[in-house]
Amino acid sequence: MIKAGIIGATGYAGAELARILYGHKDVEIVWLGSRSYADKKYASIYQNMSGLLEDNCQDEQLEALVEQADVIFTATPQGYLASVMKEEYLRKAKFIDLSADYRIKDVSVYERWYQIEHKSPEFLGEAVYGLCELNREKIRQARLVANPGCYTTCSILTAWPLVKEGLIVPQTLIIDAKSGTSGAGRGAKTDNLYCEVNENIKAYGVASHRHTPEIEEQLGYGAGEPFTISFTPHLVPMNRGILVTAYASLVRNDDGSLPSEEQIRAAYEKYYKTETFVRILEPGVCPQTRWVEGSNYVDVNFKTDQRTGRVIMMGALDNLVKGAAGAAVQNMNLLYGLPESSGLEYAPLFP
Amino acid sequence: MIKAGIIGATGYAGAELARILYGHKDVEIVWLGSRSYADKKYASIYQNMSGLLEDNCQDEQLEALVEQADVIFTATPQGYLASVMKEEYLRKAKFIDLSADYRIKDVSVYERWYQIEHKSPEFLGEAVYGLCELNREKIRQARLVANPGCYTTCSILTAWPLVKEGLIVPQTLIIDAKSGTSGAGRGAKTDNLYCEVNENIKAYGVASHRHTPEIEEQLGYGAGEPFTISFTPHLVPMNRGILVTAYASLVRNDDGSLPSEEQIRAAYEKYYKTETFVRILEPGVCPQTRWVEGSNYVDVNFKTDQRTGRVIMMGALDNLVKGAAGAAVQNMNLLYGLPESSGLEYAPLFP
Amino acid sequence: MIKAGIIGATGYAGAELARILYGHKDVEIVWLGSRSYADKKYASIYQNMSGLLEDNCQDEQLEALVEQADVIFTATPQGYLASVMKEEYLRKAKFIDLSADYRIKDVSVYERWYQIEHKSPEFLGEAVYGLCELNREKIRQARLVANPGCYTTCSILTAWPLVKEGLIVPQTLIIDAKSGTSGAGRGAKTDNLYCEVNENIKAYGVASHRHTPEIEEQLGYGAGEPFTISFTPHLVPMNRGILVTAYASLVRNDDGSLPSEEQIRAAYEKYYKTETFVRILEPGVCPQTRWVEGSNYVDVNFKTDQRTGRVIMMGALDNLVKGAAGAAVQNMNLLYGLPESSGLEYAPLFP
Amino acid sequence: MIKAGIIGATGYAGAELARILYGHKDVEIVWLGSRSYADKKYASIYQNMSGLLEDNCQDEQLEALVEQADVIFTATPQGYLASVMKEEYLRKAKFIDLSADYRIKDVSVYERWYQIEHKSPEFLGEAVYGLCELNREKIRQARLVANPGCYTTCSILTAWPLVKEGLIVPQTLIIDAKSGTSGAGRGAKTDNLYCEVNENIKAYGVASHRHTPEIEEQLGYGAGEPFTISFTPHLVPMNRGILVTAYASLVRNDDGSLPSEEQIRAAYEKYYKTETFVRILEPGVCPQTRWVEGSNYVDVNFKTDQRTGRVIMMGALDNLVKGAAGAAVQNMNLLYGLPESSGLEYAPLFP
Repeated sequence: MIKAGIIGATGYAGAELARILYGHKDVEIVWLGSRSYADKKYASIYQNMSGLLEDNCQDEQLEALVEQADVIFTATPQGYLASVMKEEYLRKAKFIDLSADYRIKDVSVYERWYQIEHKSPEFLGEAVYGLCELNREKIRQARLVANPGCYTTCSILTAWPLVKEGLIVPQTLIIDAKSGTSGAGRGAKTDNLYCEVNENIKAYGVASHRHTPEIEEQLGYGAGEPFTISFTPHLVPMNRGILVTAYASLVRNDDGSLPSEEQIRAAYEKYYKTETFVRILEPGVCPQTRWVEGSNYVDVNFKTDQRTGRVIMMGALDNLVKGAAGAAVQNMNLLYGLPESSGLEYAPLFP
Repeated sequence: MIKAGIIGATGYAGAELARILYGHKDVEIVWLGSRSYADKKYASIYQNMSGLLEDNCQDEQLEALVEQADVIFTATPQGYLASVMKEEYLRKAKFIDLSADYRIKDVSVYERWYQIEHKSPEFLGEAVYGLCELNREKIRQARLVANPGCYTTCSILTAWPLVKEGLIVPQTLIIDAKSGTSGAGRGAKTDNLYCEVNENIKAYGVASHRHTPEIEEQLGYGAGEPFTISFTPHLVPMNRGILVTAYASLVRNDDGSLPSEEQIRAAYEKYYKTETFVRILEPGVCPQTRWVEGSNYVDVNFKTDQRTGRVIMMGALDNLVKGAAGAAVQNMNLLYGLPESSGLEYAPLFP
Repeated sequence: MIKAGIIGATGYAGAELARILYGHKDVEIVWLGSRSYADKKYASIYQNMSGLLEDNCQDEQLEALVEQADVIFTATPQGYLASVMKEEYLRKAKFIDLSADYRIKDVSVYERWYQIEHKSPEFLGEAVYGLCELNREKIRQARLVANPGCYTTCSILTAWPLVKEGLIVPQTLIIDAKSGTSGAGRGAKTDNLYCEVNENIKAYGVASHRHTPEIEEQLGYGAGEPFTISFTPHLVPMNRGILVTAYASLVRNDDGSLPSEEQIRAAYEKYYKTETFVRILEPGVCPQTRWVEGSNYVDVNFKTDQRTGRVIMMGALDNLVKGAAGAAVQNMNLLYGLPESSGLEYAPLFP
Repeated sequence: MIKAGIIGATGYAGAELARILYGHKDVEIVWLGSRSYADKKYASIYQNMSGLLEDNCQDEQLEALVEQADVIFTATPQGYLASVMKEEYLRKAKFIDLSADYRIKDVSVYERWYQIEHKSPEFLGEAVYGLCELNREKIRQARLVANPGCYTTCSILTAWPLVKEGLIVPQTLIIDAKSGTSGAGRGAKTDNLYCEVNENIKAYGVASHRHTPEIEEQLGYGAGEPFTISFTPHLVPMNRGILVTAYASLVRNDDGSLPSEEQIRAAYEKYYKTETFVRILEPGVCPQTRWVEGSNYVDVNFKTDQRTGRVIMMGALDNLVKGAAGAAVQNMNLLYGLPESSGLEYAPLFP
């Protein structure tokens, strides 16, 4: 049994981790960390786990935790893990960090977008960006995995094959993303009250959202050159789900024609045909968040537009599963040589 | 492997059955029956099963199905199974009927409330009412299981211990129930459109809902005498979940005092302590539908009111799982001697 | 022009007052009081009023306000107005209090249910309970109007004719109420976050909700004797609306028969036929919150049940309008001799 | 009093027209047309109008209607009005058509996108595109007004000032639009059921939505040259509201610099400063659908992005009011020389 500890187990992503790890037959949860609810029964906060997880929450004590756990998941605010990380901890346990602390290689980019000083840039080099579909082999060897952001996972996987194959003009990529409200976390803020979110849609973080440089860095690796995008997230009145609608100009073929639907589909199949968790939908079928809810799947598809010479790429995932906790468990499975889908075989729940 | 067929696989209850059976390691789905979508790919209708269930829907052919399946689930309109059932079928396969056809022993009561002639009352005698928590032993031996209604499961389990122990005055029981909209089915009716249901709550079927006699019959067995209740269902703008709030006058103790909280809790514990899927919440904690969503759990609790001499009993379940498909699989597990929770070990999904 | 001040203008009830008073042709808003948002532009908080109400919020200064306003609306926490009220203020301005401070005549009942010491019981005598349909004449003469609670308005108006006419057995009345989430206010509490409320229904305040004694007091006046009820509120995932489902045993006629539908309908018509804002629906039609949203209407109806000898009464209103701000404006209209519906002629908004 | 008839009064747009016209002090509704509900009481279908609109629905009889009504609103399926229109009708009554029949000047474009033959292209010449903010003077003189589409109104008003002022590069405009579900109409379709829409977001009509050519035509007039856009609508789980997020590359100033925020704001103010129903929000404040719900306002704003050289324009409106019925009444007010805001002075309803 893998002994797993969670720091930040009472946020939505942490709770989803607890739920998934509870159902994972090779894992034992040894630590449900929560500063706000220390010493309170976990199931009194997440009553869904009543009778299933009977332990109390524990305050943050990383020193003690690294002695007890094989793997530690940190579902913590930006800056936390970077501020406490030590070489000693990494020798004792593996870390899967759900925050952004080790996702961006260039510390100045991190500090500019997050407006936080990075306290342990010395670990940025060895940290592996934990998007399994891109970095599978590196993840297997890692001590420190930077679990990707929810918007970023959806954005990157939606555009990756076309970027990598050079089918779209790099600087034309525009990503319009829509997220359910669990992505905003469980903090008690007026803006996230039921009556403020319900019956409403809004954009936020326009031209300034922190997931932008993360998407740009990864797509830049795919393109082999720096990549600049427009990225606009929106808040949707639903609990879970992210939908990405991405627009880009197609690179014309040598004969001046636009790439055909088949050419583009072939690119998607090249990268995702053997992926368990990426589903390329049938032609003409749009991804919808309801079809992936509660599961680790990403549904992707696209439509070309001869009138404008653009391709519209679409992707949908559950922000708490493939966008956070599910991806983290997928990373853990890689770290321990388990089948990548262990504990993640849930079919999506509908309705 | 148990070979399972579903008739009515494209309604919400049928689809939930497909989802649960897909994840059940001892079951193979051999028939996805749907008259409306015959010969269409199942995953084109329930896109969540894309890549998971790749078969086409098949039209109704019970004759053929009993040859292929060990167990047949019928998630069909009232009257269907009663109109086609034959002794020969029951010799070839086991049936778990999610409709009301075999739930009510008195055929005249069925016909009065459902306004349908019962076409095969000869099987009413052997049909077993499939509420596992009440009829576990009988179910193991059955050929024909009448899977309980969603409101009825929640109502009966919420009130059962107090009825059975004689703690409440029978004719005072009032059940005010609230259901998510998946209970209304997938038929294309104006009343169930998004804009008609959203931002609204209403009562319906007041003093005339068909689940009333089913609840009365079962509670009558508990009370040892005929039982009459007021039952009012309400439609709530959410996908899944039933909450029952039940009111009854307490029977006073011999010394004239009202039963204490401890006495009442002891009654609940007597019946549910060893039940996997019934969770008695801690004192003061109200059941909420969100804490059971996607799972086979029923959460129950109660509050006594010294001012009025009443007890308020509360229960919550997921109408598509414990209220339909989950209970059906629980019944199947009993029929085949499997652990009762096989394929049903899901923790509730939140948020 | 009536000069109106609002204390607590940035809560949901206060904001609804601002919206309604803005559209009232005989009213000028002179004070948008808000402690939390003092000196901030009102329309920056309630952006719907952008371009319409351009003033800043003002901190609480009752001393100054009574000099400027003819009528003062207090949409403030329990205890506030009672703790500051003086005879001098009442000589200078009329008060319509949306809190519970002056609703309950018996100060010990108030203090027991609210767990607050009442700081100015000397004004309880003259305060008029502002349910226009019951107390119209007294309100016209009042200096201090205690605007009723949202649940109470809906509960009282739903049951009143049958209580007053002695058609139901007093101690059998059970009120099961369901409310949209705006009733929980705009405070930043985890329990009211979108993801906690959405896709959920729960009871709360079981056998202990503060609106209970208020309903009991008023219905007691109708019955001519003390009245004890069971009252259970529920939280529904929608913004606005309250639905009351009320159960009571019918008093049999002298010949032993149950009252007929016609008898009961006649009672409703006796009290509400000439009421602008109470609509008795046609036989068989259930009140639904969507049909009153955004308006000052209360829809009521009932169903008798021969099997149980009970009547099921139903009522629906918009908790922020007829349940709070609309009723307050109706009271103001009475105070100033305006047509009772001035500024309240909105048809309900659907969908 | 203006005598108004509505054909298609039981769809959502028609019902909103009925609601708004009911509250318009210069209008009398003389005809509530509905083929599906002919001879049924209108208020039995739209129960919100109970006690307010007591007439029955009437079947379609245009011949009779033109004799009784001064102005006729057609909230009918595409192709209906074009198939019945006659010169004689236009001599007897004014028409405001909420369908697309007379919006697009080029009949071949209409027929290609709508896949319907246009039966009366002879009236296309005189029909005036009823976007008051653009065509105010022409509308005053019209006999036949083509009321704009919901997406189109929001898209055009959001982008118009920058297009007209030549601040954006025409062929770079990408419009990502999100709509509440009332936009899908009241037809009983499985796809619009509560459980199918709730907890979901999806794109639809990708690169093929019928509002595309309408937006292109109008923006083309602004640009003075043909205009091609990418337009993607999305379905959001809420009743009302459209949000448009529009992306375009900025045209650089002569000195090579990007236009400043001030330059762009000046463009918006040039066109909208005196408009009653267009609100330019303060810098940094994003439009949200909740702030315009139930009103005729459009909120617009923008953000420039130095990194990408793009501007992100945003607009929000209520699809049933400014996107349909409110705009139609605004048009009617122009036709009859009334103040443009007559009957439309509602502040938005929140929450």
